[in-house]
Amino acid sequence: MKVREIAKLLNGELVGNAELDVNKIAKIEDAGPGCVAFLANPKYIKYLATTQASCLIVSRDQTLEGMMRPEIAFVIVADARVAFGWMMQHLNPLPEFFKQSTAVHPMAVVDPTATLGIGVSIGAYCVISANVRIGDATVVMPGVKIATGTKLGARCVVYPNVVILNDCTIGDRVILQSGCVIGTDGFGFSRNADGSYNKLPHGGTVVIEDDVEIGSNSTIARSALGATRIEKGCKLDCHVHIAHHCNIGENTVFAAQVGVSGSTQIGKRCQFGGQSGVAGHVVVADDMIIGAHAGVMKSFVEPHTTVSGFPARNHVAALRGQANMMKAAAQFHEIKQLRAELETLKKQISEKFSPRK
Amino acid sequence: MKVREIAKLLNGELVGNAELDVNKIAKIEDAGPGCVAFLANPKYIKYLATTQASCLIVSRDQTLEGMMRPEIAFVIVADARVAFGWMMQHLNPLPEFFKQSTAVHPMAVVDPTATLGIGVSIGAYCVISANVRIGDATVVMPGVKIATGTKLGARCVVYPNVVILNDCTIGDRVILQSGCVIGTDGFGFSRNADGSYNKLPHGGTVVIEDDVEIGSNSTIARSALGATRIEKGCKLDCHVHIAHHCNIGENTVFAAQVGVSGSTQIGKRCQFGGQSGVAGHVVVADDMIIGAHAGVMKSFVEPHTTVSGFPARNHVAALRGQANMMKAAAQFHEIKQLRAELETLKKQISEKFSPRK
Amino acid sequence: MKVREIAKLLNGELVGNAELDVNKIAKIEDAGPGCVAFLANPKYIKYLATTQASCLIVSRDQTLEGMMRPEIAFVIVADARVAFGWMMQHLNPLPEFFKQSTAVHPMAVVDPTATLGIGVSIGAYCVISANVRIGDATVVMPGVKIATGTKLGARCVVYPNVVILNDCTIGDRVILQSGCVIGTDGFGFSRNADGSYNKLPHGGTVVIEDDVEIGSNSTIARSALGATRIEKGCKLDCHVHIAHHCNIGENTVFAAQVGVSGSTQIGKRCQFGGQSGVAGHVVVADDMIIGAHAGVMKSFVEPHTTVSGFPARNHVAALRGQANMMKAAAQFHEIKQLRAELETLKKQISEKFSPRK
Repeated sequence: MKVREIAKLLNGELVGNAELDVNKIAKIEDAGPGCVAFLANPKYIKYLATTQASCLIVSRDQTLEGMMRPEIAFVIVADARVAFGWMMQHLNPLPEFFKQSTAVHPMAVVDPTATLGIGVSIGAYCVISANVRIGDATVVMPGVKIATGTKLGARCVVYPNVVILNDCTIGDRVILQSGCVIGTDGFGFSRNADGSYNKLPHGGTVVIEDDVEIGSNSTIARSALGATRIEKGCKLDCHVHIAHHCNIGENTVFAAQVGVSGSTQIGKRCQFGGQSGVAGHVVVADDMIIGAHAGVMKSFVEPHTTVSGFPARNHVAALRGQANMMKAAAQFHEIKQLRAELETLKKQISEKFSPRK
Repeated sequence: MKVREIAKLLNGELVGNAELDVNKIAKIEDAGPGCVAFLANPKYIKYLATTQASCLIVSRDQTLEGMMRPEIAFVIVADARVAFGWMMQHLNPLPEFFKQSTAVHPMAVVDPTATLGIGVSIGAYCVISANVRIGDATVVMPGVKIATGTKLGARCVVYPNVVILNDCTIGDRVILQSGCVIGTDGFGFSRNADGSYNKLPHGGTVVIEDDVEIGSNSTIARSALGATRIEKGCKLDCHVHIAHHCNIGENTVFAAQVGVSGSTQIGKRCQFGGQSGVAGHVVVADDMIIGAHAGVMKSFVEPHTTVSGFPARNHVAALRGQANMMKAAAQFHEIKQLRAELETLKKQISEKFSPRK
Repeated sequence: MKVREIAKLLNGELVGNAELDVNKIAKIEDAGPGCVAFLANPKYIKYLATTQASCLIVSRDQTLEGMMRPEIAFVIVADARVAFGWMMQHLNPLPEFFKQSTAVHPMAVVDPTATLGIGVSIGAYCVISANVRIGDATVVMPGVKIATGTKLGARCVVYPNVVILNDCTIGDRVILQSGCVIGTDGFGFSRNADGSYNKLPHGGTVVIEDDVEIGSNSTIARSALGATRIEKGCKLDCHVHIAHHCNIGENTVFAAQVGVSGSTQIGKRCQFGGQSGVAGHVVVADDMIIGAHAGVMKSFVEPHTTVSGFPARNHVAALRGQANMMKAAAQFHEIKQLRAELETLKKQISEKFSPRK
């Protein structure tokens, strides 16, 4: 592929030799001759001086003054990360992970009442139960179990060994990564006088809207009534747990191992760092950023707030609290010093003004 | 269903129109005409003024003085949450998630030496290995793998894609949610001089007593010797990890993503908040409450203690520590002020009493 | 088995009756007559006075002066834990978890282009896709799904329901515990102006070197470019997440529920406590110890550092910070006291030296 073809594909401005050939995608730090790489995170600018890449895709707002080497062809775009994704998608379409010669593998159990759209692929050892509906062109990989009454939209990708329990509703273009569980029972019990528990039935459901991605081994619990809802465009990494009755606003993202407790309402476009958690029955406003490992224990209703620490506070306050904790030793020393000097003064004064004088 | 039938089913006191018809279960905030809802959590009393429910199930000890609207029929019971659960169980029996026309699906592998009780159901693509014993009326959903020598009790429900390794003992009425793993190897190694590790064999087992529920994708590790034991009535949410040699006392509950390290002894009726963790080789007393995200790093032997934070401390002390951290900035300012004033005083005194005078 | 046979097997020094018969392995606190137990952790020395074991394996450097009871035969070895592991391995070879009479179960789908080594065993309901290569004597238990182009080495053990996505490379003697997922998509997206996200393709792979063990339900994400790499000898417990582009140095161990964010470089022989986490794009030096629940938010380049807390700091500093937080209340009281005394002094001085006098 010529650099000028890349520039055209990405609608980018080209600086350098348009006729260079590139035939491989690489990371900037590993790239050799013939490779195309990208530069979006300022942390990686240090590799600019040494990279062997033939072509670099860079963002327009990055200042590379005096760092652009003549032997490298630069393609300048609005957002290098987005553009690079486009190019990769163009060069690497989704591989066929599990080859099969029939749309529905002969070693799959599909109930006669299930409805499959045009071009649906069902892998070996899948179970598609009664009254399930699957939309056009959805790929269901081997070992997936879908219980009665669940609806999946079109062009979804369901990875191996996913479990979707009964009566869930899943939109179009949803990606469910390996081993995730959709619609497991909410964790709800009533406690008896002797400390034992009775399980509360969870007759509700889970609704996952269009363009959501759920990471491997994540779990989404069904509600007792109504639905646990993941609004369109949300992205969940691996090991994320969303409890019963939650509502997750559109385009909110969760890094790995985040947990959200029951009946909590999360706003739109929030970003949750890894291993953070949210208590039950609280509200998280739109556009909030929750730091890694943070524990949100109360509602935050002001949009665009960044919180961190445990319990989660406004990030600036949390940093100050941390700093205080570390500075305290010096302060404790100063307090001792003040005490000593004060005692000396008191003694001086009492000597000077003692009645004996 | 008439309201008077609900009152009779729940053995409750009826206030209002006994002949009202209800045909749907709903949450108090969503309920419309013809719906029955419940009110147990005081946080939801605010919806009492606006709910459109025809019937509300409320707890006897809740003060609703002056808030009971005449158009709503109230059924007053000892515990509204328990009663509502009963009613839901009555109205919604466990659905048949995976329809099959034979008790053992033809697409399941059951070893000839395995013993299945009366009414056992085995789903498609299950593997039931040699010498496994399964009690009466237990339901094993598709894709479950049970290794040699494991015993399951009666009336258990095993969800899809669960894995139970060899020689485990599981009681009656146990619920194993999708994708959980029972009896995985404990994480035990010996370290060689060069920093590499040798795996220690884990020839022990896991014992899960009656009425336990294990959440989706949770993992219970087998011990090297003896058994990891989950005593009767314990409830574990999703992504919980119990390490080798642990003993979990009866009716203890774990919210999602809790981890317990090896050889730890947890008391009865404890409650673990989400994402909390416990170190290895420690003791947690009976009836303790461990806050969300807390890290228990030492033994707590006093029953009924509530702990929180990291490292976990008595909750009141932990809150005080947090408050100190946040208040410290003001104190640091006061220290500076004290220093300045003290210096002034010292100067004054030294001037007044200077030898020159 | 005679005690002298044990001493010979373990190359240990024998103190006591060499002809005693032992026929069972037990924990020191549970051991009865005829049992052999071991003593490596000083926490368990308290059981020495009461154990009923016939034989104890102890480490040479343990001081048991005056505590060695004559009725117990002691086998003294360099490392009691290692030696006990050897003995267990000798007495309990890996059981056959899923009996089958053919090497490849008839209920498994193996693509004709897949290559299986000598003695490979493939369980029921496995799918081995196109161009997969599996080395000699590797055991693949039921329900495992391996996508196109992946290579597994020799003598690996793959537990039930594991998923390995396409084009991964896995070394020899690797153990993949139940339900783990290797090669799931990295969590990478580009953000659009309206807050929605585009998925970045992850055309890279995962490389797992020899002698690695991955715990149940853990997840290893594939990189967008190049490989996520787990170097030889690493041991990961359950629920561990390693994100895209990470490199984990050899013989590093991760307790349960640890998460490592993308593009992070972890050194060799590190030890991660349970529920700890590491931010993306940072470096962790060799031989570091990361405390349980710690959150590493920046690079640590000094080898052999121990860190803890959130954000993770040098362990001694973190402990001091914690201590400060708890001691602060007393200090605040002292500040108040200093203020009161200072005010008294100021008043005294101003009275003594007032112009009125």
